[in-house]
Amino acid sequence: MNWKLAARAERMNPSIIREILKVTEKPGIISFAGGLPSPKTFPIAAFAKACADVLAKDGQAALQYAASEGFPALREFVANELAKQSAAAGVPWAIDPAQVLITTGSQQALDLIAKILIDKDSRVLVETPAYLGALQAFTPMEPQYVSIASDDEGVLIDDVKSKIYPVRPELVEGQASASTSSARTDGKARFIYVIPNYQNPTGRSMSEARRAALSQAAREAGLPIIEDNPYGDLWFDAPPPASLTARNPDGGIYMGSFSKTLAPGLRLGFLVAPKALYPKLLQAKQAADLHTPSFNQRLVAEVLKDGFLDRHVPTIRALYKSQCEAMLAALARELAGTGITWNQPTGGMFLWVKLPAHMNSVDLLPKAVERNVAFVPGAAFYADHPQHNTLRLSFVTASVEQINIGIAALAAVLKAAL
Amino acid sequence: MNWKLAARAERMNPSIIREILKVTEKPGIISFAGGLPSPKTFPIAAFAKACADVLAKDGQAALQYAASEGFPALREFVANELAKQSAAAGVPWAIDPAQVLITTGSQQALDLIAKILIDKDSRVLVETPAYLGALQAFTPMEPQYVSIASDDEGVLIDDVKSKIYPVRPELVEGQASASTSSARTDGKARFIYVIPNYQNPTGRSMSEARRAALSQAAREAGLPIIEDNPYGDLWFDAPPPASLTARNPDGGIYMGSFSKTLAPGLRLGFLVAPKALYPKLLQAKQAADLHTPSFNQRLVAEVLKDGFLDRHVPTIRALYKSQCEAMLAALARELAGTGITWNQPTGGMFLWVKLPAHMNSVDLLPKAVERNVAFVPGAAFYADHPQHNTLRLSFVTASVEQINIGIAALAAVLKAAL
Repeated sequence: MNWKLAARAERMNPSIIREILKVTEKPGIISFAGGLPSPKTFPIAAFAKACADVLAKDGQAALQYAASEGFPALREFVANELAKQSAAAGVPWAIDPAQVLITTGSQQALDLIAKILIDKDSRVLVETPAYLGALQAFTPMEPQYVSIASDDEGVLIDDVKSKIYPVRPELVEGQASASTSSARTDGKARFIYVIPNYQNPTGRSMSEARRAALSQAAREAGLPIIEDNPYGDLWFDAPPPASLTARNPDGGIYMGSFSKTLAPGLRLGFLVAPKALYPKLLQAKQAADLHTPSFNQRLVAEVLKDGFLDRHVPTIRALYKSQCEAMLAALARELAGTGITWNQPTGGMFLWVKLPAHMNSVDLLPKAVERNVAFVPGAAFYADHPQHNTLRLSFVTASVEQINIGIAALAAVLKAAL
Repeated sequence: MNWKLAARAERMNPSIIREILKVTEKPGIISFAGGLPSPKTFPIAAFAKACADVLAKDGQAALQYAASEGFPALREFVANELAKQSAAAGVPWAIDPAQVLITTGSQQALDLIAKILIDKDSRVLVETPAYLGALQAFTPMEPQYVSIASDDEGVLIDDVKSKIYPVRPELVEGQASASTSSARTDGKARFIYVIPNYQNPTGRSMSEARRAALSQAAREAGLPIIEDNPYGDLWFDAPPPASLTARNPDGGIYMGSFSKTLAPGLRLGFLVAPKALYPKLLQAKQAADLHTPSFNQRLVAEVLKDGFLDRHVPTIRALYKSQCEAMLAALARELAGTGITWNQPTGGMFLWVKLPAHMNSVDLLPKAVERNVAFVPGAAFYADHPQHNTLRLSFVTASVEQINIGIAALAAVLKAAL
């Protein structure tokens, strides 16, 4: 049989990270590669009790088909929790639970957004580097990625402004044309996609000033902001500044997840969308999988009752902070004075290492694996023009003891290659 | 904010069935409208035990990220079960578990297939009438639907053959052109989508002869068959003939589900694909939601151990058979001699009623709801040229007592309109 594939299928690729994870799956390896939350943090006992309670109380409803929008109690929880966080961050955000769509992980939210907003060749603005999972979700809808120059605080506002519309060759040549106006409308970027808090892959966060400037620039230009916030709850010493969407709720879609605060294996995420946009996202959701498992939604709603996250999440923060500090200390101990640099995350799961410009981290991975330590080469995370002298380290999966051993092994590989 | 939507979003529509279900959600209504499995059949005690066992034994792994392909034990179960059923039906089918992809309900399988096989304006052959959920999943990829004439045994083979390639106006006009060959290749249908067993919405099944003929015609023409089989296990007196995919495994994708044999609220389905096609489906799956909830997969694998389905599914068959018989008896009692006709399903969840040609079931629905009974007007299920004098009745949700009351009420509405 000669199957004819859709053009978009040609653009799909195996996840580079998943391929790397396969290479690094050898016994005894210390992996800084995957973005796997520490399973020590999974509240297994709470889930066991919730399973028993939900099945005893509402078993038939929990196992039946359900509304595509999501379980009402969970949608209310999300709306209230975000409103509470936003108010605490100084930017009140009134969310109607009717704006909340429960998704099968926040990865699905990316898929739904791509379906309703991206046409073939639509321009989509992304960070440099960008979250690989988002690129994978958007790519089947065949966008043109436009990488926005970024520093330690996130995207550079002037670069955002200059790239909302395509560079017009005749303007570059100094020859403005009468058709500029309609061409600008056609080629206008559909949205900018950002992770403001403890970004994947870099671990960096947007400052308050940068958020304010991005929000204002986007609002003035009518550029939607797709704000992905899977890591925002994982702050070490202080919560991050208020979300971008809270600053202009009609101008963006917000995405969150229970994967990092409860457990990823339930595949529970959510989005908050302007009411005008919600029906199309809901229709895309119905077509994608009818609804997110009702059992999982009721389970989590049961676990979340009575302020569970307020007791549970601080334990995750403390664990990840201690592991991040151990990794930073080990890096400083092993690599000070080598010209290799890294950032100092204030939350999240990742940190980002820069090697001297001539080095290529892809070449170093096999050598690291030989020494029983793994990372993700940074080149995978660029929509274009990959910087090969970068790598991502996750500090959440390995213990402090493993971090000390693993960073020493990694440092030996890096120093040998200098 | 002025959001610019993708062209495909304009084609998406709210599910007509879900809109109807909202209308019919009034206390005390007897609904033959939804396709909701009887919650009496959900094995709640088995799930409760499996939850406790899985969390006690493998809690951390069950709550962690997992492989996009699915949980190995569940993929093996699917491969073995299908091989067993096919052998019993006389068509051996050797399935490698590596060909099985676990999906978030079989609805997701439809979404993944649409993404990798449908370009804008690709021709897609569907039954008359067709499963609405499939139309919803395919539509965002902007196919051209081609409805295949169908009788009580499914699609008519001559009509399939005549529609694999587009009708060429110059051929219709009797003027063959030199460009015929390349145009035929370009416009060739990407696949035919069928539900051979107890189809949704009609409840009809393909005979062995029809299956053999369709399989042969598709193989000869190089037309892929997308075979959806959510209801095949729900036979009343004898299992259905062997699957289409078993007859030519390289020429089709097979889809199945645990929604009807265990519970829909877990959202667990699967597909079996030729090895050449599997990687693209897997990439689409990764991009769509990373993986189907690992907890749900392990839960079901645990429940399925030790031949659970062999004990459980016969109880569902017996229940649905008794309810179907009650509905058929009630229809005969109330509507004999009126010119209204219906089919005699041999399994599944639905039956299909035809009214005299001048009647429109959409107009009758409000009158039925007034009398506390609901159905789905058949027009919703046609890709084009809806037949308004049809309606779908589900016999699985209501009890025998409710069926007797509900059909009497429905018959009064229909007879008043004759």
